[in-house]
This record gives sequence, C-alpha cells and structure tokens, in this order.
Amino acid sequence: MEIISGGVCAAKGFSAAGVHCGIRKNRSKKDLSLIYSEKRAAAAAVYTTNLIKGATIAVTKSHLKDGYAQAIICNSGNANTCNANGGQVARETCEHLSKALGIPVEDVVVSSTGVIGLPLDITPIKNGISPLVAALGDHSRDAAEGIMTTDTKVKEIAVRFTVGGKECRIGGIAKGSGMIHPNMATMLVFITTDCAISPAMLQKALKSDIADTFNMLSIDGDTSTNDMVTVLANGMAENPEIMEDGEDFAAFMQALNTVNIYLCRAIAADGEGATKLLECKVSGAATKEIAKTVAKSVVCSSLTKAAMFGADANWGRVLCAIGYSGAPVDIDKIDVWFRSAKGEIAVCHNGAGVDFSEEKAKEILLEDEIEIVVNLNSGSAASTAWGCDLTYDYVRINGDYRT
Amino acid sequence: MEIISGGVCAAKGFSAAGVHCGIRKNRSKKDLSLIYSEKRAAAAAVYTTNLIKGATIAVTKSHLKDGYAQAIICNSGNANTCNANGGQVARETCEHLSKALGIPVEDVVVSSTGVIGLPLDITPIKNGISPLVAALGDHSRDAAEGIMTTDTKVKEIAVRFTVGGKECRIGGIAKGSGMIHPNMATMLVFITTDCAISPAMLQKALKSDIADTFNMLSIDGDTSTNDMVTVLANGMAENPEIMEDGEDFAAFMQALNTVNIYLCRAIAADGEGATKLLECKVSGAATKEIAKTVAKSVVCSSLTKAAMFGADANWGRVLCAIGYSGAPVDIDKIDVWFRSAKGEIAVCHNGAGVDFSEEKAKEILLEDEIEIVVNLNSGSAASTAWGCDLTYDYVRINGDYRT
Repeated sequence: MEIISGGVCAAKGFSAAGVHCGIRKNRSKKDLSLIYSEKRAAAAAVYTTNLIKGATIAVTKSHLKDGYAQAIICNSGNANTCNANGGQVARETCEHLSKALGIPVEDVVVSSTGVIGLPLDITPIKNGISPLVAALGDHSRDAAEGIMTTDTKVKEIAVRFTVGGKECRIGGIAKGSGMIHPNMATMLVFITTDCAISPAMLQKALKSDIADTFNMLSIDGDTSTNDMVTVLANGMAENPEIMEDGEDFAAFMQALNTVNIYLCRAIAADGEGATKLLECKVSGAATKEIAKTVAKSVVCSSLTKAAMFGADANWGRVLCAIGYSGAPVDIDKIDVWFRSAKGEIAVCHNGAGVDFSEEKAKEILLEDEIEIVVNLNSGSAASTAWGCDLTYDYVRINGDYRT
Repeated sequence: MEIISGGVCAAKGFSAAGVHCGIRKNRSKKDLSLIYSEKRAAAAAVYTTNLIKGATIAVTKSHLKDGYAQAIICNSGNANTCNANGGQVARETCEHLSKALGIPVEDVVVSSTGVIGLPLDITPIKNGISPLVAALGDHSRDAAEGIMTTDTKVKEIAVRFTVGGKECRIGGIAKGSGMIHPNMATMLVFITTDCAISPAMLQKALKSDIADTFNMLSIDGDTSTNDMVTVLANGMAENPEIMEDGEDFAAFMQALNTVNIYLCRAIAADGEGATKLLECKVSGAATKEIAKTVAKSVVCSSLTKAAMFGADANWGRVLCAIGYSGAPVDIDKIDVWFRSAKGEIAVCHNGAGVDFSEEKAKEILLEDEIEIVVNLNSGSAASTAWGCDLTYDYVRINGDYRT
C-alpha cells in the first residue's frame, strides 16, 4: 500500500469539481461540490445518530436503498436542517443534477453543511449545476474546498493497493468540525474507489471500519445533525468483485482504514480552535469495549483537553476521565505516558504519580501531535481515540461569531 | 419557610471554624475547616461515582455506617487522592480531631479537596487542629472559605422552617468546581440541621433530593474524585423525630431542596471561568427521565455553552443537543425560548426556527442568569438542569495554570 496524490479523483473513472454558486456571500469561497463516476458504482453510507437530521439525509438514504450511486453533490453555507423547505430543496437538487449528468435521480447522493434553521434557496444551486458539471475533471482539491466551512485546511488523501493482482485506488475528502454562521458543526467524508466490491460487502467494510475510526473521533462532544460518510466503488480496477470475507476483503479493509485514519487525524487536528491533535492509545484492556470507552472518555474530557492546550502534564485529569468513563477498570493497575515527536515520559504507574521531569514533560507536550498512552494492565484489548485540545479560539469561534 | 443568615451555624447546637494551617502556601488562604455539633447527630452522605476516589471517601463511609456523626473536618490544597499515604493521613486526621473534641473517632467525617497525586503531610493538619477547635463559634463563613479552591465566591445559605409545630433550621456551605494546582475540580457540600430525623429518613431525603439538584449540575462534564454531600441532623429543634413519610418529612424535604437548589445555582454561577448561570428548564416530557436527559444534554453542550458566553441566540445548538441526548423525543414538537431578567423570546416552534428580533435576543442573553426553556409538548414531566457558559477563562484556568 502506498500513499498517492489525487484524492477522490485518484481512482479510475472518478472526476470532481467545486465552484462558488452563491449560497455563501464570500465569492472567493467555493460552496458547491460534485464527485462523479463514469460508471454506476456500488455505494455505502453511514449517517449521524442525532435525532435531528438534515433534510438531505433522508433523500440520500432513499437513493442508496438499492446499493448504487453515480454522483455526490454537496453544498456548504447552509445545512438545510430545521427549515420548512428542506426536503424539497434536497430533492430538486438531485433532479437538476440528474438531468445535467444524464443519470437516474436515484443515483445521486446529496449532502449539505452550514447554518441550521435557515431556508435554503434552490436558485443558486440550480444555476450552479451547469458550471459545476462543466468543471468536472481531476479536481479533488476543488471539491474538498467546496465542502469546507470553518475548516482551515483541505483534507484529502488517496492510497494504492492490490486486490486479486489488480492495482486498486481509494481516496477521500473530508470536512471537519467547523461552524458556519451560526449553528453548525459537521463532519462529512466522501470516499471513492475503483475496487470492485458488492454493495453488501462495501457497507459491511464501512460500518466495521468507522467503529474504530470516525466513531472514535471527538472535537467537542457535540454530535452534528448532518454527519455522513459515503463510499462509491465503481469496479473499474477490474479486480474480481469482492463478494465475501477473505484476503481480498482484508486488503480492501486495510486500504479503507488507512484513508479513514488519515482523515480522522486531519479532522481532529483541524478541530475548531485546535492547536494540537490528541491521540489516546489504550492497551491492556479486558475487552475492546472497555478500551474504546476509556480512550473516548480521555479525549472528550474538557479538563484534559484544556491541560493539553497549556502543555500541562496533568495526568490526574487523565486518570479522572478514566475513572468516570463508566468502564470497569482496576485503577491500581493503570499506567500513563505522554508521548510526542520529542520523546516519551511516564507520569503515572499503578494508578499513582511517579517522579518525572516537568521540563521534559513540557517539551513533549509543546508539540502539536500528542499521544496519551494508557495501559490498563488487565488484558490484551486495545483502542485509539482522536481529539484536540480546548483553546481560547474554540470559545471565540463558537461564542463570538455573531457578536 | 424563610431564608436566614448563619449558614451551617444557623441550626441550634452547631458551630464552625476555618483556619490557615499551612497546606496551602498562601498564608491568607484558609485551608482547614471544621463543623461541630454539640450533640451527636444523625448523618447521611452521598459520594462521587468516579472509580478513582479520594482516600477520605472510604474513611468517611466507614465512619457513617452507623448513621451518626458529630464533626466534619475538611482541608483544601490537597485532594489526598492517588497518593501512597492517603488512607493513613485521613485516619490520623480523624484521630487527632477526635482527641481534641473528645468524641469517638467514628463520629468524624473527613474530606479533602485540591491537587491529585501529591502526598499529603499530616503535620500542618495535626498542628492546625488545636487552633481550629479553639476558633469554633458562629463562623460558617470561615468554614466556607476554608474549603474554597478556585471558587471566587463564598457559598452559604440557611432557611427556617416548621416541623411538628417546632421551628427548625437547615443551612449549608459548598465549594464548587474550582481547580487547585494542578489537577482537581471538586464539589463539596456540608449541610447542618437541628431538625430531628432518623438516619434512614435523612439518607432517603438526601438521596432523593440530589437526583434533582446536584446530579443535575454540570460545569464541564468532568466528574470529580472527591465529590461529597453530607448532612448532619442533631435534633435540637425538639420536633417529634421524623421516622417515616408524611407531612413532616415533606416539610423537611422542601427545606433541604431549597438549600440544595440555592447551592447548585451558586456553584454553577461560579463555575470555572463562568460569566453566566445557565438553567435549562424542560417541560412537556413523556417521562421524568426524558426531561432530565434533555435538560442535562443542553447544559453540557460545549457549543451551547460557548454560544451563551457570546450572547448568541443559537437555538440550533439547543436543538442539536436535544437530538443527540439519546432521549426519545419528537423533534417536530419542540418549542424553545430564551429568558432572563430582561424578558423572554421564542426562538423555535415545532422544531423549526421562528422570526425573532436578534436585538431583543442579544439584550436577554447579555444578562448573567439565562434560562433555556424547552417544551417537548409530549407529556407532563419536567426537569431543570444547571450549568454555566464556556469562556476564555475556563481554558486559561485549566490550560495555563502551570505555564
């Protein structure tokens, strides 16, 4: 497996575009993105568990019932959520795109990100579709830009891997937890691959993988109304179609996991106001579930997150978060280290503090990627969760936006 | 029922003191507090659910097994948690106090708040007990000061009520979520009453009341290792001892509830870095559990808390927090208002936005006590949760402390 360029256009038969159509006032910001496959593709998706869902979610769900799709359209600037006309605008968007591309309306995936609670006008989308389709090409980056809200960095990745002797490619773009005036924080991920895989196995791969990737990612504990991860697999790599578990499926899973972990880390590192990526690696757990619960509790702890912002080796915060996680752990067996590019330092052994150099700890924690390493010493299960520090800028972005 | 002065010394037979004994370096900060009852008192307590518990918790639990106590001693400056000598220091503290007061060691409640993971030296406590006992008097405020950490305000209250024709008094002091260098956020509440009530009914009253008061309070979602709420009831009001449910028990419950709600609101308003008290009042729920889940989810939402700091009428944040709370609610029936001393404004009706004056909303939200009023329109259950806004200062206090 090898990391390559091209993002969602790396896989054969995929093109993409991003344009400014006028939903966002700032004309330099792209606000409408398209990903298109020459061939109808197997499609899988997972959605937010928030009871309040963007109008696009229901439309996309119904379109993906048959397990296939050919295009993904996504606007930024308006979440199309908690408004009166949401469903209609989502359906009309799909209709206009289906005509422009000459594909069935049921093969369109639609998604939105931005403000909650404002009506979304179809006009800019309708007018934008023609230039959007005209712009289709090797433009993964444009599509990645068109779905950004307060993201500060474009997030895209692609890898090359081999299935059944054929070279396959898989790539993805993502937008992270950024708020648009005034109400929204959303994670959207769109993945394309030329690997041949059945819709059922594609859904199985995605569902299984996100349990260890996007579901282990937290920016601020708030769950968006519009979250969606979608994969299109058009089979143009001409490998024997993956129909069941086995070596080929494992190879695909590994490639998908590489893409998803890269995007998870990119989203966490670019969390609102974040200055640091936090990675909590829990090992020695009696069960996988315990490892996951503990890892998530640590990266979600406001006190831990604020301490990391201050490069303060507050291991007591980590222990405290483990203690209230709800997971049954033996406190007296817990070891904790902090680790970064500057090295590693042990701060807690058997649930109690150890002498350590504050100077060395500070040097380690001043880096912008921090690992919080926890060994529960009670088994062999492990898990990793991703998050970011809690900063002044998080408060500024989410508190002062309309002030 | 009437609010009176005197705090934990308002009830007959109680005296209190607070001194500086040397655990904290700053000599102007009291760090050792005592509450004493002339008569042995019925005692009840509830404790943190964090698996990591301060050493004092186990000692207090064992002393309260018989349902009686006569004194409460509490130090600030060191949580006596996750250290090697914690249990021993807690036991020795009780022994020294028992000798100084001439009461059985089993009648001492001991508590600590401050840094996690540092050894606690018994010497300043041992030397401090004599001046502490000598200072006993009508000094509820001194005792309240001695348990403060980063609290900015003393928290005390007392009320007068009638049981069985006798005037009774109940009062309390609290410390809120403040961090001491470097690791701790703790809530401690000590309540005294001269009402005669059996240990079993006292425990029943406390357990029942905190479900709607202290368990509905959130500063930052982190659960402390040392949290404790303790009540002493010495019976010196000479009412017929409350032994069962009925009118007398109801009167006691109401007085206890008044004290606890006051202290809840005081703790929330003085949350770390807080500029605003948030009160989420949920009504129209199908069940009490749903009302509680929704109310807590709203006051715990970082996005809602940051929006309130910015006086930004982001009702979408409120809806989003309701949506991911896990409670089964009908989104399309939800109404939301913001309310303060400046008035009330409807912002969401039937799960969708309504036109409202941003100017009026801003005026309402600039107040320092904000009610977020949610009607689920699906039943008659209601609940209230308390919290505070998320501010730059929260991040500063918890991130930069050792920088």
